[in-house]
Amino acid sequence: MTILAPTTHETRLLAQGLTLPTVAPTPIGAFRNLRRSGRRVYVSGQGPVTADGTFLRGKVGADVTTAEAREHARLVALNILSVLREEFGTLDAVGGLIKLVGLVNAVPDYEEHPQIIDGASEIMHQVFGEAGIHARTSYGVGSLPNRITVEIDAIFELAPGV
Amino acid sequence: MTILAPTTHETRLLAQGLTLPTVAPTPIGAFRNLRRSGRRVYVSGQGPVTADGTFLRGKVGADVTTAEAREHARLVALNILSVLREEFGTLDAVGGLIKLVGLVNAVPDYEEHPQIIDGASEIMHQVFGEAGIHARTSYGVGSLPNRITVEIDAIFELAPGV
Amino acid sequence: MTILAPTTHETRLLAQGLTLPTVAPTPIGAFRNLRRSGRRVYVSGQGPVTADGTFLRGKVGADVTTAEAREHARLVALNILSVLREEFGTLDAVGGLIKLVGLVNAVPDYEEHPQIIDGASEIMHQVFGEAGIHARTSYGVGSLPNRITVEIDAIFELAPGV
Repeated sequence: MTILAPTTHETRLLAQGLTLPTVAPTPIGAFRNLRRSGRRVYVSGQGPVTADGTFLRGKVGADVTTAEAREHARLVALNILSVLREEFGTLDAVGGLIKLVGLVNAVPDYEEHPQIIDGASEIMHQVFGEAGIHARTSYGVGSLPNRITVEIDAIFELAPGV
Repeated sequence: MTILAPTTHETRLLAQGLTLPTVAPTPIGAFRNLRRSGRRVYVSGQGPVTADGTFLRGKVGADVTTAEAREHARLVALNILSVLREEFGTLDAVGGLIKLVGLVNAVPDYEEHPQIIDGASEIMHQVFGEAGIHARTSYGVGSLPNRITVEIDAIFELAPGV
Repeated sequence: MTILAPTTHETRLLAQGLTLPTVAPTPIGAFRNLRRSGRRVYVSGQGPVTADGTFLRGKVGADVTTAEAREHARLVALNILSVLREEFGTLDAVGGLIKLVGLVNAVPDYEEHPQIIDGASEIMHQVFGEAGIHARTSYGVGSLPNRITVEIDAIFELAPGV
C-alpha cells in the first residue's frame, strides 16, 4: 500500500520544476523584504534580479518585448517566494496569496501589462493551487529603480499556526 | 404611522438614481476581481469598461479632458460596486470603504488627478454614507492596460456577520 | 538615583530634533488623511507641502535633484507623522509601521528612487526605532497632483489598547 503525502506548496514547486534562489534579494534601501502584521505578510516590491545580482533592465515597448518582460515577471515571482522561504523556512507557512501589484516600466502608449504580470500570477497558481487565487492591480510606471523592467509587491496570509 | 426602513447601501444607491452593471467586468488576466481576507476585501484594479465591453481609452491631458476622465472614474466606481454585489449578492454586505488607489493615465505635466478620482470617491460617499469615508492615494501612471484612462483599486471592510 | 522614563516615539522624535507641523495637511479631495480599520491605520498619500501650504514641485531628474527630492521625502514623512498625531494625540498610539509606498515624479530614465524614499524611511526608523522596520515599494510615476515631486502613503499598526 502506498501512502501519499498531502500536496504542499513545496511539493507543487518541486513538481513544476521551479527552483528558488537560495538567498533572497538584498533590499536596495532602508527597508526589509517583508513585514508581518498579524496574520498577513507584506512583501516589499521585488525586481528581476538574477542569482548573480544582475538587474534585468530596459523600457518595455522599446528595448524589451512583452514576451521578454513576462519572463522577467516570472523571475520576480520566484524572488518573492524566496523572500517568504527565507523568512519562514518553508513556503508551507503561507496560507494564501491575497494581492499582487504589478508595475511595468513601459513606454507611454504601452497596453499589454496584464500579459506580463500573468507570468507572476501563473507561478503563484502553480505553487499555491487554490490558495494562490488573488486580487491584482497592474499598470505602467514612469520609471523604476535601477531601470528594471518589472516590479511586483504582494500581500500574503499565513497558514494556521504560523 | 409610517414605519421607515433603515437606510441601507442598496436604498441609497436607488435613491441616488445610480445603476450598477448586472455583470461585473471580466478580469483581463490570471486573477480574480476580488479576494477576501478575514474581514477585509481587496478589489482588483478596475477600469472604465462599459456594459457592452468597450474600454474608454486615451491619455488625460492630451486626448481626454479632466471632466471626461472624472466621468470615467464614476464608471469605474460603479464597476467596483458591481464586483461587490456579484460576490455578496448585495452592497449591504459591505461594512465600509477603507481605501482607494486612483491611477490616471496622464501626460507627464498633468496636475489635476484628485479632481478625477473625486468622481469615484463621491459615488462611494453617496452609496455608503458615513461608512464611505476612506483613505486615498491618487497619481498619474505612465501607461494603463488597453490604454484605458483611469484604473482604481479598493479595500473594503465587511459588515458584521458576513 | 535617576529614574529613566521609557523611550517612547515622542521622546525619540524630540531627541532627534525633529518637529512636526502642528496641523496636518488638508486633503486635496473627497477623502480623509487617515482611515482606521481594526488594528491598522491607512494613511492617504501625502506630499511635500510646507507649513505655509506651499507645494514643492518639479520633475526629478530634470528640475529637481535626487538630493533635493530626498529632503522632500523627509518632509513627507513628517507630514505623515503629523496626520497620526492629529488623529490620536500622540505618536505613542502607533505600534509600528507596516509599509510605505513611495512615488517619485521622475523623468522616464530615472533610476535612484530608493535613495529618495530612504529620506522617509530613515525618519521612521529614527522615530519608531525597532517598530519602524517596514516593507516598502518605490517607483517613478508619470505625474503627481499639483506637480509635487514625491508622494508617500503608509500602513501602520496601532499600539495595544489604542
